[in-house]
Amino acid sequence: MYIGVDLGGTNIAVGIVDEKGTLKYQKSIPTKRERKQEEIIKDMIETIIEVIDDYWIHKNEIKSIGIGIPGLADPDTGEVIHCVNLGWNNVPLGKSIEKALGIPVFIDNDATVAGLAEYEAGVMKGVQSGVFITLGTGIGGGIILNGQVYSGANGVGSEFGHMVVGENYYECNCGKNGCLETFSSSTALINYTKKLIMEEKYETILKENINDLNGKMIFDAAIEGDQIANLAVDRLVKYLGIGIVNLVNILDPEIFALGGGLSKVGTFLLDKVREEVLKNKHYKTLPVGKIVLAQLGNEAGIIGAAILGKYKR
Amino acid sequence: MYIGVDLGGTNIAVGIVDEKGTLKYQKSIPTKRERKQEEIIKDMIETIIEVIDDYWIHKNEIKSIGIGIPGLADPDTGEVIHCVNLGWNNVPLGKSIEKALGIPVFIDNDATVAGLAEYEAGVMKGVQSGVFITLGTGIGGGIILNGQVYSGANGVGSEFGHMVVGENYYECNCGKNGCLETFSSSTALINYTKKLIMEEKYETILKENINDLNGKMIFDAAIEGDQIANLAVDRLVKYLGIGIVNLVNILDPEIFALGGGLSKVGTFLLDKVREEVLKNKHYKTLPVGKIVLAQLGNEAGIIGAAILGKYKR
Repeated sequence: MYIGVDLGGTNIAVGIVDEKGTLKYQKSIPTKRERKQEEIIKDMIETIIEVIDDYWIHKNEIKSIGIGIPGLADPDTGEVIHCVNLGWNNVPLGKSIEKALGIPVFIDNDATVAGLAEYEAGVMKGVQSGVFITLGTGIGGGIILNGQVYSGANGVGSEFGHMVVGENYYECNCGKNGCLETFSSSTALINYTKKLIMEEKYETILKENINDLNGKMIFDAAIEGDQIANLAVDRLVKYLGIGIVNLVNILDPEIFALGGGLSKVGTFLLDKVREEVLKNKHYKTLPVGKIVLAQLGNEAGIIGAAILGKYKR
Repeated sequence: MYIGVDLGGTNIAVGIVDEKGTLKYQKSIPTKRERKQEEIIKDMIETIIEVIDDYWIHKNEIKSIGIGIPGLADPDTGEVIHCVNLGWNNVPLGKSIEKALGIPVFIDNDATVAGLAEYEAGVMKGVQSGVFITLGTGIGGGIILNGQVYSGANGVGSEFGHMVVGENYYECNCGKNGCLETFSSSTALINYTKKLIMEEKYETILKENINDLNGKMIFDAAIEGDQIANLAVDRLVKYLGIGIVNLVNILDPEIFALGGGLSKVGTFLLDKVREEVLKNKHYKTLPVGKIVLAQLGNEAGIIGAAILGKYKR
């Protein structure tokens, strides 16, 4: 058995996962990220102990603990290198928990571990090379190469959200201009929709909700034919298509799996993305990996974190 | 001993390379690319035989033949998938030569094999992960991961020249807009310099040479302080910096090696690229692989092709 921890900006989810990658039991607590990191780590440790006790299992049966963090991790040292959401820099998270519980701890980026889960038990099962893209508030990614997670020499690879793919009318939080997540995340979708509504050039049913827009509302409106919603969705898709073709030209994986909140829109988004990628191929017969929707949803974060140890040893 | 073939749009260079990756002997013939592919392949075979004879070696001593091609290759089938310069599509190059000579043949992209040469005997020796970027008429690339060439699932990876990094005032040959090679190749440098000269906003010593500009002339002028040359070089460097930081965010390699014609400019270019990458890091302490100049020059193409067989078996 393995323990998986999905450390998010809002909640910390802890679960027990078996050898096959099945989530057996889980528990969730609020992160309260404004607290000191020591307090958050103490809560994580207590929740792990609770989950072990609740599931009536002995600590010795847990082979390892894995943690997915919303930022950059050093898989070799178990350190959180940089995590904007939590305001953490160079936090020895892995070692702290290992010391407290006496169980080996592995950490990696949350999108990377979700990609690993899709490889172990989801839509990327059996591939030699796969790219997982999370489309949510931001954009993250995970790379599977030769049946292993690939995070780069310094643990900062597969950060597709900060790949520059064009020029945008506003800067990214990271200080650069043109990052994929400023075009194709739900945040970007909402920002651009608001911009279009305020320009008042087109009709829209979204006008009355301008102050509480979310990604789902905009996609629902687009499906119903709303003009502004469709312009905003098309822009998201245009740049996501560029991003995916960039990844073809660099990594050329067998498969692309789209996960994260926006992927719940399903085939309406998937069909548009596939069409855009076909349009962007730099010659007609260029072979491009399959593009599919991820399968495991929210559980991917816990499952992927849990099985990190299975792949690292 | 190995045979390496560097199949270019202008010349075909054939060489004998030893186990250590040292080029022992080479011969070059014009490609005359307007000819039928059968004739070009026949010439390649004859030159390989001549090189073997000239070097007074028995055919049995040649373990394998490797070919670097200026386009996309399928390393598994030995097929040239697509090659704009030569106008070749789906040409069974590997099999034709294997059949004629009875020696195993391996093929890959020319920049990929040059990267392999830098890994075997040059500046990327000993790294776990390295990215090689050729800056010439176009932009190509090679990826080394875990001591192996990485060309992707379909052999179309490491084509950094067609990574979209911004928006440009003209389209790429491939039909897309914003490809790295439309900003940072020598062709792009020349195009943009001409554009600036014709706009007549700035003084330049390059004006009289507007019709026979080349990359070296523009860099020489930039070093001497020419205003237009510096504007053009700065633009090249700006987008190359974006491209390299994109590759950090995706592949995060230990090292970047810059090769190809433009890399001969040396530290003037290297220093500017390093500075630009530092500026583009999406947070201050982001660890970025070393950026260095390639070491092997023109010989990299033959050496890397030759040793393909050493890595494939």
